[in-house]
Amino acid sequence: MVNFADRMDNIRASDVRELLKLTARPEIISFAGGLPAPELFPVEDLKAAMDAVMDECGTAALQYGVTEGPKHLREQIAERLEAKNNIHTDADHLILTAGSQQGLDFIGKLFLNPGDVVVLESPSYLGAINAFKQYQPNFVEVPTDENGIIMEELDRVLATTENVKLIYVIPDFQNPSGRTMPLERRKQFMEIINKYEIPTIEDNPYGDLRFKGEFLPALRSMDTKDLIIYFGTFSKILSPGFRMGWINASHEVVEKVNLIMQASALQTPTINALVISKYLDMFDIDAHVEKIRAVYKRRCQLMIDTMRAEFPPEAKFTDPDGGLFTWVELPDYIDTRELAPKAMAQNVAYVPGSGFYPSGTTRNCMRLNYSNATDERIVEGIKRLGKVLREALA
Amino acid sequence: MVNFADRMDNIRASDVRELLKLTARPEIISFAGGLPAPELFPVEDLKAAMDAVMDECGTAALQYGVTEGPKHLREQIAERLEAKNNIHTDADHLILTAGSQQGLDFIGKLFLNPGDVVVLESPSYLGAINAFKQYQPNFVEVPTDENGIIMEELDRVLATTENVKLIYVIPDFQNPSGRTMPLERRKQFMEIINKYEIPTIEDNPYGDLRFKGEFLPALRSMDTKDLIIYFGTFSKILSPGFRMGWINASHEVVEKVNLIMQASALQTPTINALVISKYLDMFDIDAHVEKIRAVYKRRCQLMIDTMRAEFPPEAKFTDPDGGLFTWVELPDYIDTRELAPKAMAQNVAYVPGSGFYPSGTTRNCMRLNYSNATDERIVEGIKRLGKVLREALA
Repeated sequence: MVNFADRMDNIRASDVRELLKLTARPEIISFAGGLPAPELFPVEDLKAAMDAVMDECGTAALQYGVTEGPKHLREQIAERLEAKNNIHTDADHLILTAGSQQGLDFIGKLFLNPGDVVVLESPSYLGAINAFKQYQPNFVEVPTDENGIIMEELDRVLATTENVKLIYVIPDFQNPSGRTMPLERRKQFMEIINKYEIPTIEDNPYGDLRFKGEFLPALRSMDTKDLIIYFGTFSKILSPGFRMGWINASHEVVEKVNLIMQASALQTPTINALVISKYLDMFDIDAHVEKIRAVYKRRCQLMIDTMRAEFPPEAKFTDPDGGLFTWVELPDYIDTRELAPKAMAQNVAYVPGSGFYPSGTTRNCMRLNYSNATDERIVEGIKRLGKVLREALA
Repeated sequence: MVNFADRMDNIRASDVRELLKLTARPEIISFAGGLPAPELFPVEDLKAAMDAVMDECGTAALQYGVTEGPKHLREQIAERLEAKNNIHTDADHLILTAGSQQGLDFIGKLFLNPGDVVVLESPSYLGAINAFKQYQPNFVEVPTDENGIIMEELDRVLATTENVKLIYVIPDFQNPSGRTMPLERRKQFMEIINKYEIPTIEDNPYGDLRFKGEFLPALRSMDTKDLIIYFGTFSKILSPGFRMGWINASHEVVEKVNLIMQASALQTPTINALVISKYLDMFDIDAHVEKIRAVYKRRCQLMIDTMRAEFPPEAKFTDPDGGLFTWVELPDYIDTRELAPKAMAQNVAYVPGSGFYPSGTTRNCMRLNYSNATDERIVEGIKRLGKVLREALA
């Protein structure tokens, strides 16, 4: 009797959600979520920043604020983008979002009519696919290799596909694959999108979390036609519970996102923005990020080493230079969704890979997170998962 | 060259926005915004609640949390809905939203295909109209009198209009009119929507802020068919800068909103929810609300008394029993949008009424806010506005 909008046919509960809910049980070793290591959160420093905000400007922090977020924080973000990513920008080209997920929703809302095409890496981030699905697009997946999107394939897709409105990529430590796009490929990528002039989201939640190899410039820093819509967030370097991300893009896009923000949420929370701004003034976030990097480097290496020892030789996995995830590819005949209950019976959880493909047809992969588990649990969990895999492959 | 989605044709910058930006200047006496009185914010108590959260569960507060929000806060809201509004509900029928504006966006997303009909009071809340416009509906405005929607007109509209997917009402101290729907009319309203079985948003941001007359039951408390989607918020009784509201509705609607939240924002900020929850545990919010009521009662009365003395007799205005706004109706030949620059020249700001009508055709009204200005500024501002009105009517 209640009649929902057509778009709701596209927005279904993930079939892994019930599985993931179980990972809250303490006996479960979960490699499933994308959670930062909670023991690294700067609780005392953020508390000091909160107290300072409440003492210095508590009334303003509790009141409505401007749609785009406090100017000082946008200036601090602009400075950091210049210093860390070589992106020349300013506060007027930034708008705060309630985490990058809100940014994905807003950019989908801004660009996508039903039937329009979104081009993305295959596999790509589940949360982005779900955000865009709300606007009923068609997805075209571009094949990838160990260096990310294959450029000849991207060029072919853009040359032969109508109504491409948006490209979505994660050049650094991609979610879910953990892969990074090398410099040469970044240059080719910019040439191709400049040729077709397609607006492109560069989602960079993990860029600061490089623990191996050399820094690579953001696509946005090479963007001569103002086509890149750059997403950043404090979720992975400070706190996801604050829900504080940002979009850096052309004046036109930022203005439109501002209108969408007004109609969809008014603004991000004033107090959250002011507390993060104060934290950046009071403390050295780079020193904090350095601590995260050291821990994730160790955990990643431990997971890789343990997989090498414990996984059957048919299992291939990526060796990321940063970020939170490694990606395991199994023989074609293995369906990781069917395997998940067997792993759960051993109290180990992962995310089956199929959700990272809009088509859902690739079923032999899994995403493993190494940021959220202790060393002991990484070793024990990978051992158990290795046993499950060996049995499945036997 | 950049090609936005069709819905963006519907989402334009309000022509009063530039005007409103000027109201940040200290010399401007602004009756334009809907801002709470900042001097009443419980800064010290909220700081104490923040400190307690960071000391007791800082790590959890900074981490990702569940989509619907912390269970304890949803239980506290359910208890308050029972105690204050006689709504029998529980945590499972509640989902937190980043202020009611996010709830409006999500309910629009849930129900509206392009061309579907939203039925609302004439005039109705500007922010709701703008949230729904993103989904390209048609609006049907139902005529109102001093008691809100005229029930015969509502019945006629629902009997004769196809594709009505949603009704939107503010029964208590409506924004912008300040009017309240009496008990008898609430009963009639429920009979009518039960007859046609149309999902209905009851937006109740101001219900706690009654300073005159008797408490009236929420529509949701009389809702035998689970049709009412009830919106509440901490914005007007605690802090809008926290961006914390909630939806109380049928299990089916709450589940669907949960899916939309996952795809659109993941969740509201964990820390904001935990701090408000802790505040409710540590302090007496009713005692705090009592203080707000006393101040708004005085400011409202002062504005009404001053309008009676200073406005020309042709100006009619509502005498609200609570909330934040009064509504001024002028002779038909006055266009309050054209008048606004003249008021601004006297350093007084209001919101022209046309934005509160989806059709935008009614131009002789203005909304005045009394919660955000001191007594002195209310008297001075109304005097100046009276002068502008007398000149316009001369």
